[in-house]
Amino acid sequence: MPDTPAKTDDALVIFMPSGRRGRFPIGMSVLDAARSLGVYIESVCGGRGLCGRCQIEVAEGVFAKHGITSRADSLSGRSETEQRYADIRSLPAGRRLSCSAKIEGDVVIDVPADVAVNTQVVRKRAETRAIVRDLATHLHYIEIDPPDMAKPQGDLDRVIGHLSEKWGIRDVLVDVAILPDVQPALIKGGYKATVAVHQDGGRPRVVGVWPGYRERLFGVAVDIGSTTIACHLVDLMSGRTVASAGTANPQIRFGEDLMSRVSYVMMNPEGRGALTDVVRDAVNTLIGRVAGQGAVAQEEIVEAVLVGNPIMHHLYLGIDPTPLGQAPFPLAVSQALDLRAQGLGLPILKSGRAYVLPCIAGHVGADAAAVTLAEAPHKGQEITLVIDVGTNAEIVLGSADRLLAASSPTGPAFEGAQISSGQRAAPGAIERVRIDPETLEPRIKVIDVGPWSNEEGFDIGIDRVGVTGICGSGIIEAVAEMFLAGIVTHDGMIDGTLAARTPRIVPDRRTYSYVLRTEPVEIKVTQNDIRAIQLAKAALYAGSRLLMDKLGIDKVDRIKLAGAFGSHIDPKHAMIIGLVPDCALDKVSAVGNAAGTGARMALLNRGHRREIEGLVRRIEKIETAVEPRFQEHFVNAIGFPNRVEPFPNLTAAVKMPERKEAAAAGEGRRRRRRD
Amino acid sequence: MPDTPAKTDDALVIFMPSGRRGRFPIGMSVLDAARSLGVYIESVCGGRGLCGRCQIEVAEGVFAKHGITSRADSLSGRSETEQRYADIRSLPAGRRLSCSAKIEGDVVIDVPADVAVNTQVVRKRAETRAIVRDLATHLHYIEIDPPDMAKPQGDLDRVIGHLSEKWGIRDVLVDVAILPDVQPALIKGGYKATVAVHQDGGRPRVVGVWPGYRERLFGVAVDIGSTTIACHLVDLMSGRTVASAGTANPQIRFGEDLMSRVSYVMMNPEGRGALTDVVRDAVNTLIGRVAGQGAVAQEEIVEAVLVGNPIMHHLYLGIDPTPLGQAPFPLAVSQALDLRAQGLGLPILKSGRAYVLPCIAGHVGADAAAVTLAEAPHKGQEITLVIDVGTNAEIVLGSADRLLAASSPTGPAFEGAQISSGQRAAPGAIERVRIDPETLEPRIKVIDVGPWSNEEGFDIGIDRVGVTGICGSGIIEAVAEMFLAGIVTHDGMIDGTLAARTPRIVPDRRTYSYVLRTEPVEIKVTQNDIRAIQLAKAALYAGSRLLMDKLGIDKVDRIKLAGAFGSHIDPKHAMIIGLVPDCALDKVSAVGNAAGTGARMALLNRGHRREIEGLVRRIEKIETAVEPRFQEHFVNAIGFPNRVEPFPNLTAAVKMPERKEAAAAGEGRRRRRRD
Repeated sequence: MPDTPAKTDDALVIFMPSGRRGRFPIGMSVLDAARSLGVYIESVCGGRGLCGRCQIEVAEGVFAKHGITSRADSLSGRSETEQRYADIRSLPAGRRLSCSAKIEGDVVIDVPADVAVNTQVVRKRAETRAIVRDLATHLHYIEIDPPDMAKPQGDLDRVIGHLSEKWGIRDVLVDVAILPDVQPALIKGGYKATVAVHQDGGRPRVVGVWPGYRERLFGVAVDIGSTTIACHLVDLMSGRTVASAGTANPQIRFGEDLMSRVSYVMMNPEGRGALTDVVRDAVNTLIGRVAGQGAVAQEEIVEAVLVGNPIMHHLYLGIDPTPLGQAPFPLAVSQALDLRAQGLGLPILKSGRAYVLPCIAGHVGADAAAVTLAEAPHKGQEITLVIDVGTNAEIVLGSADRLLAASSPTGPAFEGAQISSGQRAAPGAIERVRIDPETLEPRIKVIDVGPWSNEEGFDIGIDRVGVTGICGSGIIEAVAEMFLAGIVTHDGMIDGTLAARTPRIVPDRRTYSYVLRTEPVEIKVTQNDIRAIQLAKAALYAGSRLLMDKLGIDKVDRIKLAGAFGSHIDPKHAMIIGLVPDCALDKVSAVGNAAGTGARMALLNRGHRREIEGLVRRIEKIETAVEPRFQEHFVNAIGFPNRVEPFPNLTAAVKMPERKEAAAAGEGRRRRRRD
Repeated sequence: MPDTPAKTDDALVIFMPSGRRGRFPIGMSVLDAARSLGVYIESVCGGRGLCGRCQIEVAEGVFAKHGITSRADSLSGRSETEQRYADIRSLPAGRRLSCSAKIEGDVVIDVPADVAVNTQVVRKRAETRAIVRDLATHLHYIEIDPPDMAKPQGDLDRVIGHLSEKWGIRDVLVDVAILPDVQPALIKGGYKATVAVHQDGGRPRVVGVWPGYRERLFGVAVDIGSTTIACHLVDLMSGRTVASAGTANPQIRFGEDLMSRVSYVMMNPEGRGALTDVVRDAVNTLIGRVAGQGAVAQEEIVEAVLVGNPIMHHLYLGIDPTPLGQAPFPLAVSQALDLRAQGLGLPILKSGRAYVLPCIAGHVGADAAAVTLAEAPHKGQEITLVIDVGTNAEIVLGSADRLLAASSPTGPAFEGAQISSGQRAAPGAIERVRIDPETLEPRIKVIDVGPWSNEEGFDIGIDRVGVTGICGSGIIEAVAEMFLAGIVTHDGMIDGTLAARTPRIVPDRRTYSYVLRTEPVEIKVTQNDIRAIQLAKAALYAGSRLLMDKLGIDKVDRIKLAGAFGSHIDPKHAMIIGLVPDCALDKVSAVGNAAGTGARMALLNRGHRREIEGLVRRIEKIETAVEPRFQEHFVNAIGFPNRVEPFPNLTAAVKMPERKEAAAAGEGRRRRRRD
């Protein structure tokens, strides 16, 4: 039956992009029409014209397919309510408040993916990626009748009844923690209150009740790294990151790297609780700090999203990680978890929820899942290699067709550990190195000191922060530059004969070192340092290469380096030393704290949660520990690449020199991992 | 299409009493056929012939309606598994294990309402009412593959997958508290484990995992009274009550009666937590005690069901009860609650659940709901009056057609408080009294002393326990007997002229007292005691009468007196003093701890939970505080009934003498309630 374009008692309303449609009485609000079709339009105030979140637009034009013409005047004119809202908070041209706009004729309604509500002050932050919001927790303003002796239903029951009747939210769950708070909030607000309802797949849950009307709602995204823990406070109503903070993981005193912490738990089963406690305390302190920075009350934070590698994931959840220390590396739980925040001791709203991203495999954690979500290799046709560089590198390779994941035991060298002058990336650390191939003289750049060492102002900066050591990115550059300058050979030996040309090459026990700096302390790159970097980069390379084998490719279209170290590494130098497989240099990029970004995406959008949950199920997991090819790749990658043409033509195929003697070192490393 | 009776490749199977039917391949187990039709048959071992819970019977005969003949040999013969089970644990004649019995032809299967599995030792307990089980928490035995590096799914995920595939239990929830326990249990049991799954309306929830096969599962039913807390440990696999214990409510030190505790919280808002803490501690101590008696480990107790009056309900849940202290007496929450036991600090299985029965109204609590469930006035055509006698009497009246509920502020007189020689029902308390109308001499019976005071052995018993006071049932009998003997007049005055006849009537200030006992201490019934009982019984009567008015009746068919006091009261004496409205004496009965029975019913059977939830919604709640007729009935009921014929012909209509002067006392009482 064709839809008649003429105005009648009712009108055809089509909502885009869903395409849902129905006939509704003239005079009905667009919001009510949407609700009755199950089209989701955000609304806090429930149609009172206060929150401005129910904005829609009329898609104007002739829609021949539907036989209707949709015009701006298919809706009632701008109401007083809309005008008041526009005056106070502004309403873009063409935008209407769907609670106020009434249907006057056939109309096609565009529901924007996300509505940006302008508050008086908008702080722009460049690092904030725009994430479309589809929140798990929503605010709903309610007004209920005062209690009535003739209908002695509990106050909470009446809130639940109102949510069902007025908001269509049925079968709500209630946590015991919220029971004492509901009635006092209702009484304080004169039976007007704002209710936070969490719904993420299962039954909706009342998680918070505040007196009166409110629009404040926050969440935290937490990335629990073995070395560093980062926390972002996100305004859920705008999507903006309000504050960020990071701290060293205090578990470091139980063991610098993950496996040593697992060993600690194996040796001290009673001490496991302490590892859980310190990491939870650190997370909680960070949440307190970002809440303070953002001037946000604890009870305004309604959700936390957490990511971490499998061992941090288990320890944070209070699960024994020791099975992860040996084959078959069984995860206690890998699926995404929707938990009570209170069960984790999180200092947020008492009945708030915590979402933990799924782990991919025994050594590929929820952090890798978050990186995958953020970098979305599954959304393109390019074969993309995403590497979260850390003590245990987590590697994801593929495209829309197929995705593979593995981890590589790189060890802590990239974080400055096991390096003679190594240190973490902190003020005073050498982060950039250039070596003149003629003079073999270095130039350096130090964290928190602006100029290079050959530029004006360097010494003033150094007087301020000192030069205390070399961090991960610095050692990578130093080794790469030493190789380019001929100080280091393809097989990784420092060429002692160069001691004749420069005093920077000095004998060091039975090998040689290269002296980067003598003042105020001597900082040098030793033969052992080169070996440590060789082992680490060979492990990383071998992991990537193994996945490429599985995919039957020799070259990837794009490489993304994630994580703190990955963000500071110079892609050029990474390629020089053979840290990553061959790829066009301009397609290699550092993507920053992608795990944090992925966590924020999951915090702001339930669809992203479902996306990563589905994705993790279809990712093919490769366990490097049992792949003979991994060992082979590792041994072959110990040396520095013998590229067909010298840098900068790095896009040619990489050839690795075969180095039989490296096998022994590789074996030792494998055993360490299996301990 | 008629079903063909001839044997073919498949057969028609009809399950009774549900009547669900389907065609299934010859050789399929009856259990599998039932599952595929959604017919619930209990099974712990998952078809291994261990648990014996999947018993069914063949309904033999010609079922003309279905066109089939069902015979014992429509199923395969007794299998080795069944024989083994029968040898060890016995299998009644005609019973089959549905996991072992295979379909061999058209058959009608009877699924018994409940299967009694004989363990080697069966202890019979007379007080245990048989309750058909339909548990919220079930055990499921699982065997999963050991972890596999090629499929690095978390161990918990694999348990969840198994539950879905093998048991049809989908979308399970997992509480954060159980996360650390799953993998260790699986490892310990060699990936064989028994999983407890709770499902009560919403999504199923994994609540416990134990290594290997087990069949032990317990629950507790707790009745939190203002004076006494009672706890029953129930074997969920058999339905039997394993142990019971009771204790005084330690909140008594904050106030003897409920309203004085509410006043305490009003005056000391910071002290509310202490009231919650002490009552939770008392419950927890009782659970520890019954677990000890039953030799049951804490983690074997998977569920708790709790009932209590509204103020105890709120205080136990940590909710401020002060709004309940004044009109409109709003409950913070009235609906039934399915909560985490841990959230209430219950010392049971970490992820165990707590079910709290719904409250009916501001003064008619979850205890009254439990009493209603147990006494089931809604299941018959008789107009039944159920009274839970306590400081605040909770009254339910009606039949299958219509149910009403109210509470009456009886005060603590029935518990021995406000009585000059009053005490709680404990050894040494006078619990029965008879007075010879000729000599006016009393006979008494003392708790824990077998004989009456005129019988042999009384003095020996008294030497042992003493005579310390008079308890609620004792004072009721004393007053009733004083009335019958003419010592007390219709309007409640002790007749001082009788002092000439007996030295037991003595002047006491400006009135008279009756001396019940002089040794070892003087125990008498004073004029004030009579007044206190008059006020209490008038309140109780007025509440009942008000509901009768609402129902338009003058007489009830049946009266059930519940609660500790209700159980000890003699129905005859209750009628003499006019505590209850007119009813045939043989239809008045004490039903014991009906609240505890109702709690046990809800613990053992989810259907009973739905029953009481639905019932509470349709009960008509009457708030006595705002009903003018209540006041009228109260005033008219202060005196003693002027029955048409003297006792024992008590079934005649009751007439109350009008007593204008009693109104003042009644008003005072009303105000106290409203404080």
